[in-house]
Amino acid sequence: MNIGVLGTGNVGRTLGTKLLSLGHRVMLGSRTADNETAAEWAKGAGDAASHGTFAGAAEHGELLLNCVSGARALDALAAAGAERMNGKVLIDVTNPLDFSKGFPPTLLVSNDTSLGEEIQRAYPEVKVVKALNTVSCDIMVDPGRLPGDHVVFTSGNDASAKGEVAALLTSFGWKRIIDLGDITTARGTESYLLLWVRMYQNFGTGHFNIAIAKA
Amino acid sequence: MNIGVLGTGNVGRTLGTKLLSLGHRVMLGSRTADNETAAEWAKGAGDAASHGTFAGAAEHGELLLNCVSGARALDALAAAGAERMNGKVLIDVTNPLDFSKGFPPTLLVSNDTSLGEEIQRAYPEVKVVKALNTVSCDIMVDPGRLPGDHVVFTSGNDASAKGEVAALLTSFGWKRIIDLGDITTARGTESYLLLWVRMYQNFGTGHFNIAIAKA
Repeated sequence: MNIGVLGTGNVGRTLGTKLLSLGHRVMLGSRTADNETAAEWAKGAGDAASHGTFAGAAEHGELLLNCVSGARALDALAAAGAERMNGKVLIDVTNPLDFSKGFPPTLLVSNDTSLGEEIQRAYPEVKVVKALNTVSCDIMVDPGRLPGDHVVFTSGNDASAKGEVAALLTSFGWKRIIDLGDITTARGTESYLLLWVRMYQNFGTGHFNIAIAKA
Repeated sequence: MNIGVLGTGNVGRTLGTKLLSLGHRVMLGSRTADNETAAEWAKGAGDAASHGTFAGAAEHGELLLNCVSGARALDALAAAGAERMNGKVLIDVTNPLDFSKGFPPTLLVSNDTSLGEEIQRAYPEVKVVKALNTVSCDIMVDPGRLPGDHVVFTSGNDASAKGEVAALLTSFGWKRIIDLGDITTARGTESYLLLWVRMYQNFGTGHFNIAIAKA
């Protein structure tokens, strides 16, 4: 299918490349039409890869992925334009991390709200599904590189949108997908990042994830 | 050893009973000396069990456990008295959960601080170690009831205090103890509660924990 990826950083490019490998046609969107990183990515990625503005990627995609940094996500979505996103599924991969005071980051929004909710509130006609934000991008696209039955979460208000996202995650190799509930459950997975960053520091790698032990 | 448990709720009593079973002498402390729940617990728990005020339990314990609800923790510690806690290890089991608006709770403090840090700041001479706050009390005292290599975390500024706590956790049956770092890492485990409560709701049980998948 046609997929628009907002954001040309490591996460956007890694997901874009994975989506291409699965046969999708991917446009990477950025603030400007001539983003060099995006152009270089598209050049090396084959005929199904393209790049453009946020609006261009939103127009292109039947399905959209928000891979912009948390601080810039709402600006990027404003540039993408509600009229090009309404009715579509938007997978929100982003965490509202604030690195302005260095490491460890804090969260820009948290506790009684979440970035996922802020986006859903700003774009009520978009089917926002928070997912993949609890792992580094290498794990997002290749969960099999970690052993065992580790998990990925979905949060969103629209059941069929979450089903569509679950199917995509399955195609990535995910075997254990936990649907936490409505978009307010994104508070849980975004806040988990405050533990994730401490484990990252402790383990010296982002190549880890959590599994659930249950009787 | 002599252990003082602050708090007579489910968590305090469950930990108290476990500590007795391991041969420790446990005093349960509460706001008043004649707390009925504590008296009943002590009556049924044998000669090594006693109950009293927060100050009495703090005086009794060579090691202390904070099992008061998050909202009341600082008041309870004030009643216990710095002079009876200074130099001792205080295991802070509590989460700063605010249920005043119902379920799901929010956190009273979070993001750029934590209850563990607030306690350490208020009592600089106490060796605060955050631990066990990421699981329900049934799991705290009996990790073997869940399958696999699931984890418990410690956060604290004093390495030897954390070593003492790790030894106690090992005596409870914990096999995988992750020392996250100084007391500021309690932000991670306390914020994880916002995910924990959503999983609790989703699973319909508090009898679960996380394991780490790592290559």
